[in-house]
Amino acid sequence: MELLEQRILRDGKLLPGGILKVDGFLNHQMDPLLLREMAREWARLFADAGVNKVLTIEASGIAMAILVGLELSCPVVFAKKSKTKNLSGEVYSTEVPSFTHGNTNTVIVSKSYLGPEDRVLLIDDFLATGAALIGLKALVEKAGATLVGAGAAIEKRFQGGGDELRKQGVRVESLARIVKMDDSGIQFG
Amino acid sequence: MELLEQRILRDGKLLPGGILKVDGFLNHQMDPLLLREMAREWARLFADAGVNKVLTIEASGIAMAILVGLELSCPVVFAKKSKTKNLSGEVYSTEVPSFTHGNTNTVIVSKSYLGPEDRVLLIDDFLATGAALIGLKALVEKAGATLVGAGAAIEKRFQGGGDELRKQGVRVESLARIVKMDDSGIQFG
Repeated sequence: MELLEQRILRDGKLLPGGILKVDGFLNHQMDPLLLREMAREWARLFADAGVNKVLTIEASGIAMAILVGLELSCPVVFAKKSKTKNLSGEVYSTEVPSFTHGNTNTVIVSKSYLGPEDRVLLIDDFLATGAALIGLKALVEKAGATLVGAGAAIEKRFQGGGDELRKQGVRVESLARIVKMDDSGIQFG
Repeated sequence: MELLEQRILRDGKLLPGGILKVDGFLNHQMDPLLLREMAREWARLFADAGVNKVLTIEASGIAMAILVGLELSCPVVFAKKSKTKNLSGEVYSTEVPSFTHGNTNTVIVSKSYLGPEDRVLLIDDFLATGAALIGLKALVEKAGATLVGAGAAIEKRFQGGGDELRKQGVRVESLARIVKMDDSGIQFG
């Protein structure tokens, strides 16, 4: 998506250790007009997929997800990072390792809001190792729901998570796909 | 706001200990059409206030805040709950006690995204003791920004946070104001 790629080139910051900071417009400060265009693009891509639920994970996926839900006129659920290991039987849970923080989060969604009748589109900001989306996929499977696909704002292709998900049969639509990132700049492809 | 009050009466769940669960439509599963109407109401109420930034706190405020930002065509920032006490000089931080979880979070916002030029509207889902909004207000003050007002989806008036903020001179616009909640039901006023 040209608009997002241009914005990454203009306002993204490349930090040592393979970190791309986009917190000026995507996941700390957010540009609602850009995010709406992104949501419209996902809605267009998945228009015929019969999506009736959008699922994301707190916190940075929420803004994009609600805008996708608005475009598709369906409810949006965000999976929560749980502080307690002592979960009730009322939630589906899974473990999601965090690339950025070097720890593992227990991620939960209430059984009331995900079930066999749901055709689910996953939305998240980054797709790198794929850990977050793989975790959300596990929640969808536990609920007996149908996974329609996944939308990521930025896919770091060189980290392999997107291709792993595709290999598992998931339709992945990333709006900006980075194939290379180094001192000489960012290369999309 | 009639639409929100009716939805609370229909789908809200009253739990022991003064907890009102609205996680079917507001803060776990979210109804984007309802949230857009709420955002339009806040945008109407603050139309002449010159808002140029919306500030919320992760995670449940984000969906409402991005929709308000869309209505007002301005950037949206969410304050983050920080895991580390070891903060760099690049953020404003404050302590926010949590009524629900019984702990205290360090809440931060990057200095890059809040400054003296900003006229800030705070948005959050619940206003009870006021701790979250008081924390966000502190961040606005540390940044030298102007606090234009605060929008809360649901104000529990009997917990006093809204009146405390009003006493401090903050314009508070709550869309549903609960004056009483017990076994006999929920009373707005």
